[in-house]
Amino acid sequence: MKSIISQSYEVHFGELAKAALKQHIAKSNYSKVFVLVDENTKEHCLPFFKKEILEYPIDSIFEIESGEENKNISACTKVWEWLSNFDGDRKSLLINLGGGVLTDLGGFVASTFKRGIDFINFPTTLLSMVDASVGGKTGVDLGVLKNQIGVINQPVMVLIFTEFLKTMDSRQRVSGYAEMLKHGLIADEEYWKQLKDKGDFTDVIRIQESIAIKNEVVLQDPTEKGLRKILNFGHTLGHAIESYCLDNPEKRTLLHGEAIAIGMILEGYLSHELKGLSKISLDEIKSTFLQYFEHVDFHPEDVNSILKLLKYDKKNTHGDINFVLLQSMGEAVFDVKVPDELFQKAFAYYRE
Amino acid sequence: MKSIISQSYEVHFGELAKAALKQHIAKSNYSKVFVLVDENTKEHCLPFFKKEILEYPIDSIFEIESGEENKNISACTKVWEWLSNFDGDRKSLLINLGGGVLTDLGGFVASTFKRGIDFINFPTTLLSMVDASVGGKTGVDLGVLKNQIGVINQPVMVLIFTEFLKTMDSRQRVSGYAEMLKHGLIADEEYWKQLKDKGDFTDVIRIQESIAIKNEVVLQDPTEKGLRKILNFGHTLGHAIESYCLDNPEKRTLLHGEAIAIGMILEGYLSHELKGLSKISLDEIKSTFLQYFEHVDFHPEDVNSILKLLKYDKKNTHGDINFVLLQSMGEAVFDVKVPDELFQKAFAYYRE
Repeated sequence: MKSIISQSYEVHFGELAKAALKQHIAKSNYSKVFVLVDENTKEHCLPFFKKEILEYPIDSIFEIESGEENKNISACTKVWEWLSNFDGDRKSLLINLGGGVLTDLGGFVASTFKRGIDFINFPTTLLSMVDASVGGKTGVDLGVLKNQIGVINQPVMVLIFTEFLKTMDSRQRVSGYAEMLKHGLIADEEYWKQLKDKGDFTDVIRIQESIAIKNEVVLQDPTEKGLRKILNFGHTLGHAIESYCLDNPEKRTLLHGEAIAIGMILEGYLSHELKGLSKISLDEIKSTFLQYFEHVDFHPEDVNSILKLLKYDKKNTHGDINFVLLQSMGEAVFDVKVPDELFQKAFAYYRE
Repeated sequence: MKSIISQSYEVHFGELAKAALKQHIAKSNYSKVFVLVDENTKEHCLPFFKKEILEYPIDSIFEIESGEENKNISACTKVWEWLSNFDGDRKSLLINLGGGVLTDLGGFVASTFKRGIDFINFPTTLLSMVDASVGGKTGVDLGVLKNQIGVINQPVMVLIFTEFLKTMDSRQRVSGYAEMLKHGLIADEEYWKQLKDKGDFTDVIRIQESIAIKNEVVLQDPTEKGLRKILNFGHTLGHAIESYCLDNPEKRTLLHGEAIAIGMILEGYLSHELKGLSKISLDEIKSTFLQYFEHVDFHPEDVNSILKLLKYDKKNTHGDINFVLLQSMGEAVFDVKVPDELFQKAFAYYRE
């Protein structure tokens, strides 16, 4: 499997990943090796990790609670205290073994512990493999507002073992599929077609292609001044929907991919209205996502609350809400303003 | 007053500072301007700041509690929430108006809010002018351990107005003098002599010279792999003493400068024992600091507790304790190991 060169680090797969890790650790002279897990990866991934991947003693393992609702500063404080209590110093290494919540949080903790120590990410979910593995975004939520606190900082390397996908339940696995389909929609129509037709989204080749698309975009615009914004397709409404459901006891908590799948249908509708995306393409987007992601009922009053949350989305500046929309399949434009009256219409299209 | 060019930013003084600020704000198109103060700078510095310095509307002002004991993650959370509640976005500016505690904390909050917004530091204490104004260190404490959480990140600019020094009590002002004397000891014997003989440490020229010495060192080694470590002279023992006194109800809480003044006498003694610093120079260091900084009693059991704290100092890696020592006045060496038996002797010399 081909490795991918990203900003200052590399993404490796399987056997190559194992070799790269061994080589890196041999030359790095780390004072301590710390491993961060959650209750799921501790049970399902850590045994394989210790037996098959890391041929090196671990100084300490710490378990955080899984779930977006635990991706906060109070969890960070526990992790900082653990590193400090176990004599972590500037020459220590933190290994993050988990999904996007864990790698986002662990990356932030490592980037800020003693003003920054090395960290290596082992994404264990499909979503974190294809989404969180390149780009260098780290951070945690502030209340219901996602990723408000964080830094852009690169891991030493990202190592991908598709063996971990077998440990996921299918709802979690499908959540990652949404981001992979997104990569096709914004940048590669051919990839979109093949992926949706074959549905082979846990295949290592497909994962590698998806990361390569994202990496291409990130390398052209690391600090998100322009092009990189297209990766937010489906996320402007998707994030607001995700926050709304998380905070509302009457709504089922949505996984990230489930929320942005809805976001992509809605923003697909806006693309059709404002940027000339064909009705055929729009319907193809809707039917593809509804084939994998359960429909969620949003009443008009839900929609109003979601729209209120929109203005807090961290991508917005000066109070304007900027959207990424599709001109056609595989071609995205960014910084598009959307007239207010279209939002209820978009939800109506999703509802029908 | 000559401006100083540091890493990616500039340090300006007085009228030039005012002009630089005006020009920067005019071209930056900030969505919001936030100002962080503490109870002291709100009362004593903010009126002058609003009347004489910032010719621009402020969107919101937030007050944190002064003091090292409040430089923690819980204070950061309040500041993050304030920025978020007042619709801070990526195009917002945070102005830090305060001493080193406030600029360290405010710099960290700005560096991590929405993965980093612009910030400008207005140091209001002598210590923060000569110490925190260049170098890009931001961060907060974790329990009694100083600066455990933070990042290296540069402000947009640092603007120095010596008018603020008039608002300080003399104990606070003298605390900054210790860092200025340190700059002479580690890098410029002539500066040390002039400064100690004239005692004109609140003169803007002396402040500018002191910043220039520190800046010279920082520019040669921004990430503290080597030379920059010499800035830690007096700090290895000084930090441990500061933490010990902060955490011990029987000891008077020391200001940073007061703690490192003691640290410099002790590490001066170690320099004499290990690196050939002359007895005359050592006595000159001791008498100079004791002229300005009250003697503190440390019993042998205090010393043992302080030595225990040493191993947590963030400069140490692999559990080794590295010292910066002086070979002669104005000439420092770093990464020196010190035999355990010398510590009680150093405290005995300080005691006599």
